[in-house]
Order: sequence, then structure tokens, then C-alpha cells
Amino acid sequence: MKTTILINCPDQSGIIYAVTGFIHSHGGNIIYLDQHVDKHSNVFFMRLESDFKDSTSLPAFKEAFNKELAETYDMEWNLYSDDAKPKMAIFVSKYNHCLYDLLSRYKSGELNVDIPFIISNHSTLGDIAQQFGIKFYHIPVTANTKDSAEKEQLRLLKEHQIDFVVLARYMQIVTNTLIEEYPNKIINIHHSFLPAFAGAKPYHAAFDRGVKIIGATSHYVTEDLDAGPIIEQDVTTVSHTHSIQDFIAKGRDLEKIVLSRAIKLHLKRKTMVYNNKTVIFA
Amino acid sequence: MKTTILINCPDQSGIIYAVTGFIHSHGGNIIYLDQHVDKHSNVFFMRLESDFKDSTSLPAFKEAFNKELAETYDMEWNLYSDDAKPKMAIFVSKYNHCLYDLLSRYKSGELNVDIPFIISNHSTLGDIAQQFGIKFYHIPVTANTKDSAEKEQLRLLKEHQIDFVVLARYMQIVTNTLIEEYPNKIINIHHSFLPAFAGAKPYHAAFDRGVKIIGATSHYVTEDLDAGPIIEQDVTTVSHTHSIQDFIAKGRDLEKIVLSRAIKLHLKRKTMVYNNKTVIFA
Amino acid sequence: MKTTILINCPDQSGIIYAVTGFIHSHGGNIIYLDQHVDKHSNVFFMRLESDFKDSTSLPAFKEAFNKELAETYDMEWNLYSDDAKPKMAIFVSKYNHCLYDLLSRYKSGELNVDIPFIISNHSTLGDIAQQFGIKFYHIPVTANTKDSAEKEQLRLLKEHQIDFVVLARYMQIVTNTLIEEYPNKIINIHHSFLPAFAGAKPYHAAFDRGVKIIGATSHYVTEDLDAGPIIEQDVTTVSHTHSIQDFIAKGRDLEKIVLSRAIKLHLKRKTMVYNNKTVIFA
Amino acid sequence: MKTTILINCPDQSGIIYAVTGFIHSHGGNIIYLDQHVDKHSNVFFMRLESDFKDSTSLPAFKEAFNKELAETYDMEWNLYSDDAKPKMAIFVSKYNHCLYDLLSRYKSGELNVDIPFIISNHSTLGDIAQQFGIKFYHIPVTANTKDSAEKEQLRLLKEHQIDFVVLARYMQIVTNTLIEEYPNKIINIHHSFLPAFAGAKPYHAAFDRGVKIIGATSHYVTEDLDAGPIIEQDVTTVSHTHSIQDFIAKGRDLEKIVLSRAIKLHLKRKTMVYNNKTVIFA
Repeated sequence: MKTTILINCPDQSGIIYAVTGFIHSHGGNIIYLDQHVDKHSNVFFMRLESDFKDSTSLPAFKEAFNKELAETYDMEWNLYSDDAKPKMAIFVSKYNHCLYDLLSRYKSGELNVDIPFIISNHSTLGDIAQQFGIKFYHIPVTANTKDSAEKEQLRLLKEHQIDFVVLARYMQIVTNTLIEEYPNKIINIHHSFLPAFAGAKPYHAAFDRGVKIIGATSHYVTEDLDAGPIIEQDVTTVSHTHSIQDFIAKGRDLEKIVLSRAIKLHLKRKTMVYNNKTVIFA
Repeated sequence: MKTTILINCPDQSGIIYAVTGFIHSHGGNIIYLDQHVDKHSNVFFMRLESDFKDSTSLPAFKEAFNKELAETYDMEWNLYSDDAKPKMAIFVSKYNHCLYDLLSRYKSGELNVDIPFIISNHSTLGDIAQQFGIKFYHIPVTANTKDSAEKEQLRLLKEHQIDFVVLARYMQIVTNTLIEEYPNKIINIHHSFLPAFAGAKPYHAAFDRGVKIIGATSHYVTEDLDAGPIIEQDVTTVSHTHSIQDFIAKGRDLEKIVLSRAIKLHLKRKTMVYNNKTVIFA
Repeated sequence: MKTTILINCPDQSGIIYAVTGFIHSHGGNIIYLDQHVDKHSNVFFMRLESDFKDSTSLPAFKEAFNKELAETYDMEWNLYSDDAKPKMAIFVSKYNHCLYDLLSRYKSGELNVDIPFIISNHSTLGDIAQQFGIKFYHIPVTANTKDSAEKEQLRLLKEHQIDFVVLARYMQIVTNTLIEEYPNKIINIHHSFLPAFAGAKPYHAAFDRGVKIIGATSHYVTEDLDAGPIIEQDVTTVSHTHSIQDFIAKGRDLEKIVLSRAIKLHLKRKTMVYNNKTVIFA
Repeated sequence: MKTTILINCPDQSGIIYAVTGFIHSHGGNIIYLDQHVDKHSNVFFMRLESDFKDSTSLPAFKEAFNKELAETYDMEWNLYSDDAKPKMAIFVSKYNHCLYDLLSRYKSGELNVDIPFIISNHSTLGDIAQQFGIKFYHIPVTANTKDSAEKEQLRLLKEHQIDFVVLARYMQIVTNTLIEEYPNKIINIHHSFLPAFAGAKPYHAAFDRGVKIIGATSHYVTEDLDAGPIIEQDVTTVSHTHSIQDFIAKGRDLEKIVLSRAIKLHLKRKTMVYNNKTVIFA
């Protein structure tokens, strides 16, 4: 049984030795270890891939870990079994490029997830959902219905036991109704190299400013719009010869790539969040 | 005699034909032509490299161009002889990496300029100036002496007939005293991918925000701090493993490269400014 | 009627003036002009986007152009009407990522083409063709049937009046049977930064060599394997932490992006081929 | 006393635990741990930064490590004290850009090394050495004198107790006379993205092939020309508008950056070599 353990705690001497010894003594073989210390905040981070021969021992392992290590070192930690296939919901609006990209990767087996459904505030992309055989819920959102719409979204997420949500160019602001239930579990793609051009119409703003580089940023959603912990960013060059339409077209490819990379990092448990920043064990 | 002509004017039909015909009929051979139309602003831009057999005819050419073309088409235009070697002044503060880089390029013959002097508000880099045999003026700047310091700077610029100024990590804000005299002729390097992290300490701000990409931007200086027309930008990746010191070290290489590229574009007359943006005929 | 004219000829003085004047005098308005001179080979290249008010005049225009310009300057040239939608055939084998990507772009309206059919030497991707409503021909290829298979392919290309062919990870070598009929009209994607790692299994070779960068290259197919004129290349970083499987996964995204960029350049008539190299008016 | 330990050995269960426990029990505090397993070759790699309060204990530590760990696990390993400043020799020919860059970084304190001398087969760059106050040995190399020249080079390297050698565009092939004495301690910069364009005149070859990307590669020198373990690579885009001279000019910046990055990785003991490949703990 392969597992991934994520740990963070105040830094002190001897943690690596203590944890590796503990896993060793419980029959685990450490395959990979990544470690980081944030010296500003004095926080220790570790990610361990370990193989346990006897998966039935994991509950006892967890209990012992809590007692013998987590309390001593004041750890937050999680153990994930690699055989659990996460459930991912996709929220979209009218743009189809990220949806096509995600569903193509899903169908190819590139993303090891279940996708129980797609939610949209428009009916536009229902055909694509159908083409790929995924359930599609059209939940319109207006200023007046926003609250009830989010409650309906939340009901669906709960009902299907969704593990994390991907906003694949979902052009609506998501509120605390959802964020609190899915902390660091809602992944957004924003079409600029944040913090430049947060908010609406970033390609137009980039064009007006005359930048020579445009970007895309995938981040976990927090209450502050486009200000959550950044998972992944990438950029591409532009010039005076490019119109706003060219910016948008070039940006589409960036958005697809950056979003899918962020999702893969999340799926492999390679992201840890602290102080509104991420540690990415890439 | 090789020349470079830069033209901008309201767009209309027939300009290319008119200009190429005019040059042709005055004994010029067009070697290279770059052209752009800003469809938003309806402005036409053109850059022509031409060879004239008889350099003595250039004054007559200019006069005729003004009468027969510039008035008709409402053109702003300039003709530069490629044998004129521009005079470049460098302003620095305490950081030496951009200065070392520029002087090395200068000594190697990579930059086809004269560098009559370096100005600094500190004496720190005087040794490097001396090492490369360039005159060094130490002009301290405080809140109280800023105005007189800039007047002294301007006096030196005028006295040496400086064509353009490079702020090679000059950590002072330059005011209209200089900007008005050198419009689109003062080139700054800012250590972020503008418009993100304008102002002071961008690497610290980038670190705090947890970005995965840092950048550098070279731009013409205008009254608005770090908001002038962008000439060149580049970026490099960072991760949680990098400290602020690492950001600064990685950024140094970006700054050197981006600044020198911008200077070369300026020297080759490949930059045109319009609406606070640049057309770069790269 | 918008048109694109591509010209190449031996370089000499006055061509730009002659061509722009000719278009002007035939009622054409030049919207964009790109020009290049290959000084090694002394070849002149030009691309003009022009607007003609009266499309019925184009045949006369072409005839006059041939007589008055093409002969004089020894030009090869072509005029394309922008309202003609090119017909593109796709050849695939078993890998689906490029096919998904192309068909998604096609369905989104991002690629302004018709796709009459997909050809494959395997039946694997027939389902995807069906999902997107495109005709799929399964033409098996073995050493013995290669010749007859290519003849069948050629028959289909002719029958459907295909303008150009995209090899979207078609794992077969294409012979002169096809190449001669479609010179500079067969676009391949190779999964390395050519000329490094030409031929089979480039990701394995890159892994064995321990490179820190992998790439993808799109080129026109010629008789020499992976040695045709390069249209577009891009790269991404790798490290010792990446397995061959990781190389392949990272490479997929490169391949998709690079191939689609090359197709777009071809569609916009921004590619010209000379001496086994390309001029790309990007 | 800060130290860096590098270990490689056949992979097996429990190594991390054994090593971290050993360091812990000898009064060392582990600050950073990087680890990698090459699953193809079944080799385990580890890099540890540790702090020992009592530096006088290091000889005993080393002896115990050898007995208790190195033999058991069949380890190759090294311990480096961070207070030892490595001695670096630079070999150059006539090109000055890498030399200027290295000496500027050295003078700025960016490279934590001593540079006892520069060797060149030409006298061209003697002035730069003098300008930066570094000893310069002019050792001409011809086909006939190559052997004696290398012996003289080796004598100087030994005399000055040089730790590693940087070939900063030294245009001569280095033979086993030097390589055997400095295995994985001679760092070269080659001006292409290897394995493309190995050997002489790579920019010319790249130009002829019509690539859209050029690169630079820094690697450890082995007997096989340009085929040693790659430390660092980077690339930049080119187009048909660039002449060979432009390739060379753009390449210079790549070469400088890539070489200096490789040197920094080497200095920080972040490089390990195995099977003609590198593990880079970046």
C-alpha cells in the first residue's frame, strides 16, 4: 500500500530522524522524502512517499503517529492512500477551452480522478459534457439567486462526496458558503500573471498597459478575490503586433496548461499551504 | 550612407507606396522595411533602413520629405544616420551588477555608444568607473538637495551633449526636471514584471505574495513612477525553496539582460512610443 | 475582399515600391506588409495583406501581376483569398492528445478549416473521431502494404481536395508518394528539439543523455526524416526527478501547443520556405 | 560549523533513517535534506546540510561514518565544510564575455571562491585579468606543444591547489592529462543545446538548420567531446530575421548565465554525477 504523508509543524532539531524512524519501525519503507523549512516563519514541511506492506495496519499507525509524534512536535499532518481516487467537480461558464482540455486529459487517463459532474451558470457547454459522458448541472446565477445557487452547488458537492473543485474559467465570484467547506480545495485559473491584473478583463488591461509578457495563474480560492495561494504560473511573450484577440488566443493555451499542472500537483499531494503561500514539492 | 527613418502618422491608404517611392526617387535603396498599424488608435508606424549613395543629399532629402510627405500625411518622423555614435550617460546608486554588465559590453564593442560619464548619488561604484576608465561624478541626493542635484545632473548632460540616459539601478526617483528634457530618452530597469510590484522592494513583495515567477522590466521613464512605456520584459521561475536573497540573486541576471536588450533596441532605433506603449520592431 | 500575397524573388532595389505601387494602382489597399531579405542567399521575401473593393477584378489583377511584375523580377508568388476555408486532413496513430487538442480547437472555431476526415493506421482513435463527428478512415500499414496504403491515402486526399495534411503523432514515415504531391503542405510534430534526437524514441534518448530541457518541433515533411523546414519549436525544463514517463507527459503538452501554433501560422499564410528553412512572418 | 554531506549508494530501505540518526547522535542538526532515487539504476542519492556545534569533532565523525555507515551501505560520500573557500582556475581563449561576467560576479562577492589565476592560449585577455587584479598565464597551444602546454597547466593547477577549473569559452580540447586529475571538476560552457550541434561552430550549424531556438549547455568535461554530464541548459528564441552574428550575440548572454549558474551549483555542492548524468539538488 503506497501512501503519501504531509506534515507541517514548528521547526526544531530532530524531526526528520524522528519521523523516518517512526515509519521504519512500523514496517514502512520510505520511497521519497521532500523537506522544506520556511526560515521566516520557522515552519517545517515534509512530504513522504512510503510503502506499507500491510495496509490493515494503517489505522493503528495513524493513532500511534498522533500520540507519539503529532502531539510532541505540534504537527498538522495527513496520510493519503494512493489507491483512493479523488472526486473532482468542474465549474464552468461559457468558455470551453479549459473544459475541453480537462475532459480530454481525463478520458486519456492522464488525470487520475472521478468527475461526477460539471456545474455551469450557463447551458452553453452542456453539449461538451454530454459528448464526454459527464453529468451537467445548469444552475443560473444572478445577483438575486446567488445565495440559493451556491447552496444548491454545495448540496451537489456534498451529495457526490466531492474532494475538490476546479473553476475552469467559471466567471463568477465564489463566496464563503463554498470556500469554508472546501479550504484549499477550490482551484481557480486566472488569466494573468498575478498579482498583476487581478479582477475582470485582465487581457484588456494587459493590452492597455503595453506589457511584453502575459501570463496565467492557478491558485487556491480564498475570500480575497484572485489573492489566494499561488500553485502555478506561466507566461508567454506578446508584442505590439498582437491585438486583444491575439492576447486572448495565446492566453487560452497558457490557461489550459497552467490549470492542468496545478490540478496534477494537487492530485499528487505535492502542494502544502501556509501563510497564504504554497510549498510545491515538484 | 546608411540611415534609419522612423515615421508615425494617422493611418490611411497609400502611405507605404508614397514613402517607398519618395525614397526611391531620391536615390535611396530600401534595405529593410517594418510597418505596423495600431487599429485601436488608427496610427500608422514605419521603420525603414535605407542606403543613400550620396550623403550630401540628405539635407535636401529631409527638406523635401517635410514638404512633400510629412505635411500631407501629418507625419512625425526622424532620420538617423547610422554613423552617428550616440552618447549615453549612466546613473547608478550602490548596486554594481548592471554597471559591470554595461561597461563589459561597452568595452567588448557590443554597445556602439560613447559613455562620457557615470553619475551616482553614492561614491561606492567610483572604483568600477575608474577600472573601466570612465569619468565618475558623485552627486549626493537628499530630500533637501534633490532639486539642485538634478540641476547639476542636467548641466552635465547638456555639457556632454548626452543623447540618452540609462538608470542602471539608480535608486532615486527622477523628476520632470530631467524627464521633460529627455522624453523617451531615459531608460530604467525595474526589478519586477510590471505592473506587478511597482515601487520599492519588489523582490520582498514578490516573496511575500508567494509568486512562482519573478521578472524585470525596462521602460522609458515618465512622470508616473514605474508606469512608462515598456520596452522589454523577461521572467524566471522561483519556488518556495528560494529565499528573498535568492530572489535578488536570480533577479540580478534578469535585470542585466533585460536592461541591455532595451538599450540595444533603443540604439538600433527599433523603439517607437505612442499612447504610453511601445512599438518594438525586433 | 481581403487577400494575402506571398512573394519571393532575387533581391534587388525597388521591389517594395514596384509591388506597393502596382497594388495601389489596381484598387488595392495594403493593410499589412512584412518583408525580409536573406542576405546569404540574396533572396527577397514579402507578405502583403491587401483589401480589394472589387473581387471580380482579381483574375485580371493576377494576369497583370504575372506580366508586369513576376517576369521582371523573377518572382514566385501566390495570392490567397481570405474567404477560402482550407481543407485539412489529420493522420494519427494511437496517441490521442494531439487529436483531442486539434478537434477541440476546431470545434471552438479557433482553427478556420474544414476537416473532411481523419486517417489512421490503427482503429484506436475512431471513437474520438466519432465523438467529434469527423469521418475516420482506418488504413492499416505494414511493410508489405505501405505502398498500397499510401496510394489509398493519396486517393482520399485528392477526392476530398485536401489542401494540407497534419501528422498529429502519426508514427509512420511518409514517403515521396505523398510528399511530392503536397510539398510544404504536410506538417509534422516531432517530440524533440530538433536536430537533437531525430528518429524514434526521442524522450528515451533525452532521458539517457540527461538533458535539462526537452522540446518539440513542428516542421514541413521532406524526404529526409525529421529534417524538413522547421516552423515552430518550444521547450520545457526537466530534471533528474523526472522519469521517462514524466518526460512523455510533459512533452505531450509541448507537442499540442507547438503543433497547433504551426498549423495556425500555415493557415494565416505566414510561412514561406526557402533552402529548407522557413521565413515566419509572426 | 556548517557542513554539506553528499552520499550515493545502492538503494535499500532505511538509509535516510540510518543517516539522519547517525548525524543526530553525533551532535549534528540537519538543516536541509534532499534525496533522490534513480529507479533505473537503483541508486540512492542524498545531500544534507547539517550544523555541528563542535567542529573539532569532525575527524572523529568522518571516521565513525566510514565504519558504521559507508561500509554497511556501500556508500561513496563526502563531507564539505562550508567555511572552506574553493580555489577556481579559469581557462579562456579570445572571447571575453564569459570572463568579464565571471570576474564581475567574483568582485561583487557573488561567487564565494578564490581565483588564483587565469590561463589562456592567447594573450588577448591579459588586460582584463590585469584590470581585475588576477594573475594571467599565457600558455600558447599548438598541435606540437599541446602536450607540454597541458603539463604546464597541470603544474600550475597543482601548485596553486586548484579545486576546480572553468573553461570560459576556452576553444581547445582538453585531454585526459587534465581530466583524469580533475574528474567532474572541469566545467565547460558549450554554445548549443546539447546534444544538438556538438563540436565546432554550433551557431553556424544552428543557423544553417533554421532552428527557432538556440541554447547553451554547461557540463563536466569528459573524454568524449561535448558529451559529459550536463549541469545546466537554457535556450532563447531566434527567427529568420536573425543573422549568424545575431545568433552569436544572443548566445553570449545565454553562455554567461548558464555557465555562472553551473558554477554556483557546483560551489554549493548541489551536483552529483552518476552514469554520465547529473543529479542537481536545485
